Amino acid sequence: MPSGRRHRVVVVGAGFGGLAITKGLRDAPVDVVLVDANNFHTFQPLLYQVATAGLDDENVAYAVRGIFRRQRNVAVRMARVTDIDLDRQCLSLDRGQPLDYDTLVLAAGAVSNDFGVPGVTEHGFPLKSLDQALDLRTHVLDRFEQVAVRPELLGDGALDVVICGGGPTGVETAGGLMELYERVLEPDFRDLPVRRARIVLVEAGPRLLPGFSEQSSTRAADTLSELGVEVRCGVGVTRVEPTRVHLSDGTVMAAHTLVWAAGVKASPLAEALGVPLDRGGRVVVTDDLSLPDHPEVFAIGDIAAARDVQGELLPQVAQPAIQGGRHVARQITRRLAAAAGAVGNGADATSEPFRYVDKGSMATIGRNDAVAEFPSGRRLSGFIGWIAWLALHLVYLMGFRNRANVFVNWSWNYLTYDHGSRILAEWDRSRASDQRPRRRRYQLSE
Amino acid sequence: MPSGRRHRVVVVGAGFGGLAITKGLRDAPVDVVLVDANNFHTFQPLLYQVATAGLDDENVAYAVRGIFRRQRNVAVRMARVTDIDLDRQCLSLDRGQPLDYDTLVLAAGAVSNDFGVPGVTEHGFPLKSLDQALDLRTHVLDRFEQVAVRPELLGDGALDVVICGGGPTGVETAGGLMELYERVLEPDFRDLPVRRARIVLVEAGPRLLPGFSEQSSTRAADTLSELGVEVRCGVGVTRVEPTRVHLSDGTVMAAHTLVWAAGVKASPLAEALGVPLDRGGRVVVTDDLSLPDHPEVFAIGDIAAARDVQGELLPQVAQPAIQGGRHVARQITRRLAAAAGAVGNGADATSEPFRYVDKGSMATIGRNDAVAEFPSGRRLSGFIGWIAWLALHLVYLMGFRNRANVFVNWSWNYLTYDHGSRILAEWDRSRASDQRPRRRRYQLSE
Repeated sequence: MPSGRRHRVVVVGAGFGGLAITKGLRDAPVDVVLVDANNFHTFQPLLYQVATAGLDDENVAYAVRGIFRRQRNVAVRMARVTDIDLDRQCLSLDRGQPLDYDTLVLAAGAVSNDFGVPGVTEHGFPLKSLDQALDLRTHVLDRFEQVAVRPELLGDGALDVVICGGGPTGVETAGGLMELYERVLEPDFRDLPVRRARIVLVEAGPRLLPGFSEQSSTRAADTLSELGVEVRCGVGVTRVEPTRVHLSDGTVMAAHTLVWAAGVKASPLAEALGVPLDRGGRVVVTDDLSLPDHPEVFAIGDIAAARDVQGELLPQVAQPAIQGGRHVARQITRRLAAAAGAVGNGADATSEPFRYVDKGSMATIGRNDAVAEFPSGRRLSGFIGWIAWLALHLVYLMGFRNRANVFVNWSWNYLTYDHGSRILAEWDRSRASDQRPRRRRYQLSE
Repeated sequence: MPSGRRHRVVVVGAGFGGLAITKGLRDAPVDVVLVDANNFHTFQPLLYQVATAGLDDENVAYAVRGIFRRQRNVAVRMARVTDIDLDRQCLSLDRGQPLDYDTLVLAAGAVSNDFGVPGVTEHGFPLKSLDQALDLRTHVLDRFEQVAVRPELLGDGALDVVICGGGPTGVETAGGLMELYERVLEPDFRDLPVRRARIVLVEAGPRLLPGFSEQSSTRAADTLSELGVEVRCGVGVTRVEPTRVHLSDGTVMAAHTLVWAAGVKASPLAEALGVPLDRGGRVVVTDDLSLPDHPEVFAIGDIAAARDVQGELLPQVAQPAIQGGRHVARQITRRLAAAAGAVGNGADATSEPFRYVDKGSMATIGRNDAVAEFPSGRRLSGFIGWIAWLALHLVYLMGFRNRANVFVNWSWNYLTYDHGSRILAEWDRSRASDQRPRRRRYQLSE
């Protein structure tokens, strides 16, 4: 450690993991530098609601500097990491000076994975960042405005949507889109046969919600079908064109919108490290979440190939990132205490293994219905599950203000079916009508 | 009127005037087509709060289709008007078929007027549309992030702002920016000498708030000075460069931000008509607000050169537009009733002159202070004035949901000084650091 300054922990990524470790180091004798390409934290579990006009974009974004304005040992750097030199312990950034670290925590998350399917990157709509959620919303609203003046586009699938991926994101987006169509856009566009629009959810595996019990899978499929979503399991997407989706059963569907919820891979930052990667490009970590040859570097959350006690890779959701962040904060504190020769609690340089505690999984299925499963085997579903889902997400949302606004918006939507967030973001009108809009408002997180 | 359809009223612009006339025609035997380049109404009096991160962008935008979902005689066309043929009674639009009208109402509003000052259009930040408000917010937040990694920019005026124009918009923006700087950005950027940043309000005339009494002008200048704003009257801006503002007294101020609140001119649509225009490019109208040679064409609000009983041009604010819209709705209804041979109320083909009722003026001056003046001569100021300002704007805001969200945001800001809306929109990082970002999210209204 260079003399004259405190131990510096650099955290890359202000997602759930990055926030958890930074908060966990509140009382540690360290300086934390939190680096993110955006100046805001994105509450990813609710991105699908932004995409389906249920919430405003700023309801799910929270200024990082605001989160840490009272934590004096944190400095925020809004920058994109362009290179990591593990030997010199130094990060290069796209703005400002390079940044040395004593301990590095990689919490850069995951990005959408096209699995090599042609056309997905060019024409599909992933849902991993705020700008992607707004892109999807813009595109769907724009399709309706287009069809309003060119009704012949109806037969070309202008209002039809294929959602690829039957996990929670796909299921929630399908339910949210159906609600947007029936409750909001049908009254908004009285002259259009909105009910004839198809929303098709395809899942390559045998059932929806593969991480849940069969019972929950069946419930999700039944509820979505009742809402009007066409659920097709055992079918994958093989090719995407601007207005056509090719399915693995040979069908070619006319649909101007493909939502890509098929899966994610670790942030490209993992590749830049030059260390061994696991499935999905995740960084291989030891059982204390540090890198095998670099005990001063940790990886947490979606970018890390952390495993549970059975040796299974942890799911790329919020809980492993939050728990991993807390774990690493504890390890850093222990090491520093041991190095300082302190005795007693935490003053042990040997690291503790990370033990992930499964708190269960939840997915909402349209209005008034959700499934929740807990490790105890307990399950909630239906209206009770939905209320539990609402409450949990309100509690986890950053800050009173966002919570209150989300509560207002949800109550309004629930009572009136009048989603207020259907503001049409800019798109390039000069493009052909069958092309997706290109709107880049927010930086891509990395 | 072509047979087989009802009398068609085409309204261009979904601002205060366009909404007022469309609502006023609710029970009239007409089909209304409301045309706007955006799918939302912008609540312009609060744009300065979006620019200063006090409100979310969607707090001041409301979906037009949502406003009229229960008014059956309204169709909404999201399109830009590209041409108006007054002889054929037909509008050309940038998407979809041309649109015939029986009656046309021009309510296209106003745009920022650079008064020919070099550099204003390229480097200044006007505040007439939602995207402009977001541009200013993005730019100011970006200046702070830039200075955080390049402190040498401080001496170059990176955090300094010149606001040109001492009307309500300039005064409100100055107060809002000062609050943003002191209450939000100073704690966010603890290492920066934010208090040394200059916010300078210049007004070419002898006093601030020229439309108000001298007493209110003095109060505004005093309150802003106490907040730390430098108020300079009798000084204009003569030239704008990316990081320098040239003033009429020969001073060249280092400032990376110029807010242009010096005035407006009528929408460029007025010029396209080929009819006589008044000062500021406003359409000359007769005393019933129709065009001299085209009784079937009305102009209301900022685009119209309407006058009060003293012959003075009406101010380009919300009230003349709202009252003009109601007036024109009544004229159209009367004419149709007379044409249909109805007797009794309203069945008189002779038009009524528009009588503008001045309801007073208000401007907020930072936190806890505002001035309000009424035609009776009654004045409110200080905290009482501020509460009146808050209440009035909440009442006029469209829709319960926006009102509730604005109330939440305002309460939060007031109690915590933690403006939640400081989300940094995308900008092009590849540009030189001294250039303004270019972000176009929303369509320009016209």
